[in-house]
Amino acid sequence: MEGELLSALCTPALVVDVDKVKRNAQRMIERCQELGVQLRPHMKTHKTIECADIMTGGSRRSIVVSTLAEACFYADHGFDDILYAYSVPFDKVERCAALSERLDLFQVLLDHPDALEQLKKRPLRDGRQWHVWLKLDCGNGRAGVLHSDPEAVRLAQETTSLTLQFMEKLKAIGITCKSSIGSTPSCSHPVKDMAQLSEVHPGNYVFYDVQQSLIGSCSLEDVAVRVLTRVIGHCPHRNQLLIDCGWTGISLDGAGKLPTGYAVIEGHPNLKLLSMTQEHGRVEPISGPLDYSKYPLGSLLTLIPYHSCATAMMHPVYHVHSEGRLLGKWTPTRGW
Amino acid sequence: MEGELLSALCTPALVVDVDKVKRNAQRMIERCQELGVQLRPHMKTHKTIECADIMTGGSRRSIVVSTLAEACFYADHGFDDILYAYSVPFDKVERCAALSERLDLFQVLLDHPDALEQLKKRPLRDGRQWHVWLKLDCGNGRAGVLHSDPEAVRLAQETTSLTLQFMEKLKAIGITCKSSIGSTPSCSHPVKDMAQLSEVHPGNYVFYDVQQSLIGSCSLEDVAVRVLTRVIGHCPHRNQLLIDCGWTGISLDGAGKLPTGYAVIEGHPNLKLLSMTQEHGRVEPISGPLDYSKYPLGSLLTLIPYHSCATAMMHPVYHVHSEGRLLGKWTPTRGW
Repeated sequence: MEGELLSALCTPALVVDVDKVKRNAQRMIERCQELGVQLRPHMKTHKTIECADIMTGGSRRSIVVSTLAEACFYADHGFDDILYAYSVPFDKVERCAALSERLDLFQVLLDHPDALEQLKKRPLRDGRQWHVWLKLDCGNGRAGVLHSDPEAVRLAQETTSLTLQFMEKLKAIGITCKSSIGSTPSCSHPVKDMAQLSEVHPGNYVFYDVQQSLIGSCSLEDVAVRVLTRVIGHCPHRNQLLIDCGWTGISLDGAGKLPTGYAVIEGHPNLKLLSMTQEHGRVEPISGPLDYSKYPLGSLLTLIPYHSCATAMMHPVYHVHSEGRLLGKWTPTRGW
Repeated sequence: MEGELLSALCTPALVVDVDKVKRNAQRMIERCQELGVQLRPHMKTHKTIECADIMTGGSRRSIVVSTLAEACFYADHGFDDILYAYSVPFDKVERCAALSERLDLFQVLLDHPDALEQLKKRPLRDGRQWHVWLKLDCGNGRAGVLHSDPEAVRLAQETTSLTLQFMEKLKAIGITCKSSIGSTPSCSHPVKDMAQLSEVHPGNYVFYDVQQSLIGSCSLEDVAVRVLTRVIGHCPHRNQLLIDCGWTGISLDGAGKLPTGYAVIEGHPNLKLLSMTQEHGRVEPISGPLDYSKYPLGSLLTLIPYHSCATAMMHPVYHVHSEGRLLGKWTPTRGW
């Protein structure tokens, strides 16, 4: 399929604009260089080798992962200095120990004294030490959606400040350490204090999505992923179209969040992805009757995902293109 | 891991009780035999070879699939007489033709004259004929959830009646044909008229789920799948537990449908799976303060999925057990 147009793909298909991916990655690299803070990009949105290479500038060093399956996948492909940013799970201590003994640097995270006990019970071989981050809850809880720029910026500022205040407290009792925050919104519009952190761990920015555009992290133009879908049915008695993208193709994330339903349908602002079954999507106009002559069976529609992490997760393969010409496929890792 | 207890699994993990799968499958086989209607089981819930063998009684004949990827997967494993129960997509006509020329019997479905034109434009080689089903909308639209037994039975009856009435109309103009309906609810409590259909196409029944138990298709005891998860955090300031199952482990299906949130937490009727991020679930009591001593870090909880089709889709592998002893793994196919 290399060199062919996107329309040659069977649908539904997740397509990745590699030029936007590179631009989003490069902007974040430059932003962090200007701030003098180390970028440790998060892999959880895409979980592919190719995109990790772009995000790390080819170094294959200094990444964050959300599952131990990702950690092993990247370690197997020559990546190192990996942070498993997940409160160390007791059932996975042995696998974490194995990675700690195998890599130059494997870092875990904890937020409870019992977890520390678990690590102490499994000393590492060859005089190696566990590398441990302490997870702080700065009150954002990563819940809900921020609906406006000012709120996103305020929260970024507050998160940074709370982290730095905690470091001051540690310093007062003689403990010096590194610090970091995650989150694409904070890093897309960094506040000045962020320069005092050691690292930042954003991930979604490489793809971005409608959600991030709504909170001002990016413009809709920056979103690097789409789901291609085709019209497969006309339902004039319901004033609806059927498309071949159900929740297996776009995910159920974003329910009730957008006037256009579960996604933005590119170039068709009056269309709404109303509901889905496993392999069907129901599309209706936001107002007025549907002009079916504009949507013949087999015609392509392009969905911009509400939440690219959730949408990417549904796809066993991503189709990569540059200016609409297919370049190849990226295969993500899955599981835990 | 074979022979080990379920508690040996890293979490989150989808576990399948093979005895319940066999019992659910056998009951459906017997129910259809009593009615004298052919059972053509749907593969879309599990998408594995092993479960397909159980559902077809080892015949590897007469199945329904929801994607062409499933059709190819089963054809590659020696299955035949496959119905691709999806309005034939124009981008996949060539792949459908290839399967029609390769298998003894590959059947497609359509609901629009344009689709018929597409098939006519691609005549099959060696004098073969396209095998085509006509898709009828009997008004249920497969949308929403039925909340009570009487409603489910009424709808099953109506769907069957409408299908049979349509066949009578065809007969009156000299067209005789076969007929079928899908749906686990209809087939779990068949109405008398169903015996007049040629085939039935249920699929979910082999796993069942909380949704099916609520509409009376099964008891909660019949549900053959669970997601095992572990407590990974205590949040006393929010009266919550964190578990290691986010929406990647259970799906976002069922939002707002259950008093217990996105799933039923087996043996803990006062717990609610309130919300999820990619890899975390937040659990809180429906009423009262949480007794954290009952849920130490690392302890196991068992989630019964609201919708097993959606939950199974999130897992690259299913862990199969009999009476809590691991037997092996089933690997589903994915994609389109």
